[in-house]
Amino acid sequence: MVAELISVGTEILLGNIVNTNASYLAEMCASLGLDLFYQTVVGDNEERMTETLMKALSRSDVVIMTGGLGPTKDDLTKEVAAKVFDMQLTEDAHTRRRIEEFFAGSQFKVITDNNWKQALVPDGAKVIDNHNGTAPGLIMEKDGKTIILMPGPPNEMKPMFERDIAPYLNSLEPEIIYSEMVKISGRGESRVETEIMDLMETQTNPTIAPYAKTGEVHLRITAKAKDEEEAKCLIAPVREELERRFGNYVYAQDEQVTLAAALIDLLKEKRLTVTTAESCTGGLLSGELVSVSGASEVFKEGFVTYANEAKEKYLGVQSETLQKFGAVSEETAKEMAEGAALRTGADTAIAVTGIAGPGGGTDEKPVGLVYIGVYVKGKTKVIRYHLKGNRQKVRDYAVVNGMNQLRMMILEELS
Amino acid sequence: MVAELISVGTEILLGNIVNTNASYLAEMCASLGLDLFYQTVVGDNEERMTETLMKALSRSDVVIMTGGLGPTKDDLTKEVAAKVFDMQLTEDAHTRRRIEEFFAGSQFKVITDNNWKQALVPDGAKVIDNHNGTAPGLIMEKDGKTIILMPGPPNEMKPMFERDIAPYLNSLEPEIIYSEMVKISGRGESRVETEIMDLMETQTNPTIAPYAKTGEVHLRITAKAKDEEEAKCLIAPVREELERRFGNYVYAQDEQVTLAAALIDLLKEKRLTVTTAESCTGGLLSGELVSVSGASEVFKEGFVTYANEAKEKYLGVQSETLQKFGAVSEETAKEMAEGAALRTGADTAIAVTGIAGPGGGTDEKPVGLVYIGVYVKGKTKVIRYHLKGNRQKVRDYAVVNGMNQLRMMILEELS
Repeated sequence: MVAELISVGTEILLGNIVNTNASYLAEMCASLGLDLFYQTVVGDNEERMTETLMKALSRSDVVIMTGGLGPTKDDLTKEVAAKVFDMQLTEDAHTRRRIEEFFAGSQFKVITDNNWKQALVPDGAKVIDNHNGTAPGLIMEKDGKTIILMPGPPNEMKPMFERDIAPYLNSLEPEIIYSEMVKISGRGESRVETEIMDLMETQTNPTIAPYAKTGEVHLRITAKAKDEEEAKCLIAPVREELERRFGNYVYAQDEQVTLAAALIDLLKEKRLTVTTAESCTGGLLSGELVSVSGASEVFKEGFVTYANEAKEKYLGVQSETLQKFGAVSEETAKEMAEGAALRTGADTAIAVTGIAGPGGGTDEKPVGLVYIGVYVKGKTKVIRYHLKGNRQKVRDYAVVNGMNQLRMMILEELS
Repeated sequence: MVAELISVGTEILLGNIVNTNASYLAEMCASLGLDLFYQTVVGDNEERMTETLMKALSRSDVVIMTGGLGPTKDDLTKEVAAKVFDMQLTEDAHTRRRIEEFFAGSQFKVITDNNWKQALVPDGAKVIDNHNGTAPGLIMEKDGKTIILMPGPPNEMKPMFERDIAPYLNSLEPEIIYSEMVKISGRGESRVETEIMDLMETQTNPTIAPYAKTGEVHLRITAKAKDEEEAKCLIAPVREELERRFGNYVYAQDEQVTLAAALIDLLKEKRLTVTTAESCTGGLLSGELVSVSGASEVFKEGFVTYANEAKEKYLGVQSETLQKFGAVSEETAKEMAEGAALRTGADTAIAVTGIAGPGGGTDEKPVGLVYIGVYVKGKTKVIRYHLKGNRQKVRDYAVVNGMNQLRMMILEELS
């Protein structure tokens, strides 16, 4: 089955905001086994939206539109879709009540008249409740074609898609599509692809699709089956084979679990605390650990030691080490990790020191040179990286690699 | 003149990567005064790409395509564009030499044969050198229509656009389009819009367009004129009026200057050093300061004090303060800022303590409650925020507001 995305809104059209809805929906649709050939962005203009929707319906089975469902007269998506399918708009009592309840629970006690526009729905459309806003989602079917309308704000659209739209899309075909994720860090994209080329070429059900992220590769395993149980049975041997091939590089089997969350979970499981000592990343690493709700159980404090004097003062790095080897060196990274652990009494530590650029590079120590020191209960390990990209990229890679190296070392040392 | 964007690539189509090229180009084209009505994403498929390009040419004057210019046989964009314009592909000696030079300077010494495909250019096309990769950009003109091809990687595309494509687009019309930016922090989007509604409604040359970012609003002032000098004269009074209305809330007049960079510049100018004390942001604030190359001149060290004990140990926050008022309180934020400055000897400090959620909120102290303490040479100020959004959003807003509050306080105290 072929699906197509249309994002409606002047903010996207003029580059005011990045179209993250499209990438989210594209990945979700692909994971549901739908074919996707086109994505279009169009403004809040009746003529152009109509043309775009009709073109999409001529070549795809399901057209998913986001945006333009709000209360203002600029919002035309529902009106255009209803006209294209020749459906009348009438007020949906249930939605009107839901909008009343939504406003009752908010700081805005007066409901302006234009809000009732959102309670109008095309005849015969399935109304999908919006649990995070006023505009409902809509599923409209006609002559074997489907138009799905969802609100534009990602915090309204994504929960709606997961809760109601994904199951609906799954129900359109007799077979269900089910996917699981294997998340890998510490192996580059091309290396991962090479190592699973044989599986990718021979596997047809389930299929394996790699998604490259900064310092990570996510492998999505997708099966078609008559039910979830059968799909899981099909996926299990493939997942086990991937686990066998990538071992400790696999950090999660769950879509929702980030690398930081996997590390925090591992620390909790092993009853370990962690601290950080950062130079070029300047706090991004500890910031990422704290992005995990509940990190306070294992992370109490961290050091941002950008200047050499700070490395000496807070971490006890020897001034001779800094003079002899420099701030960006294996020796400094080692003393930073050990010093942070010693000063805080933490069981584990991550230290990062490097040259993020654009200035500061030399032939001997080029931009992108980063040393990551990891400490686990008395043992220290330093890994040297030559990272590619601009200042932001080098720092982002350093954060991911720092977390992953500690994770790997804990698994190696304490399993 | 009407422009249209086509992004080519399976990675975008399947949601593997977010289409940041489209938002960048859309904003740039809008700032050049071009009208934009459509953006399309299409895969590396000859038939679908041809159809999409022909449709775009039928309704727009300039079609900008990104992606699909690489060396593999999947890369078809140039071939499709040449066919649509009925142009032959022949080898460009200059580009061949540039590719040779590119490889000579890289770690890959062997040039595989498929790379020469990138030296083929359509007859009559303008070749645009790629200073960050091998595939050149191309400008193709026929019958009053223009196709512009650029490589997909943003680090190749953006410099190429700024250096060569923007001036070309500007040259297509007798009048030039010139824009300047006024960047504001500390005033919400709707408030800014309300305060300039009269200007937005009456100004036609230059125009003013607001772009909302996290904790910031960017106002782009765009003028049409016969040359840059005239455009600057048209813009000057509007810019001065905006400066008058928003005063110290204006942090930069330059597209490239981030809030962190503006703060670092101000600190350098006033010969002040800065330190940080972070709880819920966990290092993101110091990480953002260090994102500015050369921050080391004013920022030496920072504290990530997530646990209460760490706030006492490193910042000297009184345990009575923590017991009586709690970690998320005006009193704690004040002691954190003052303690950080005292312990490091820094002239200024930013402290952040808050409840980022999703857990930890109470009726009295709800999720999103954040106290920001700023210290400038003996004086301390604490600002209370109730920030909206999920954990990530609350922390991002706290970082922006922390930097901006220090910036504003320095301007107030030391001007």
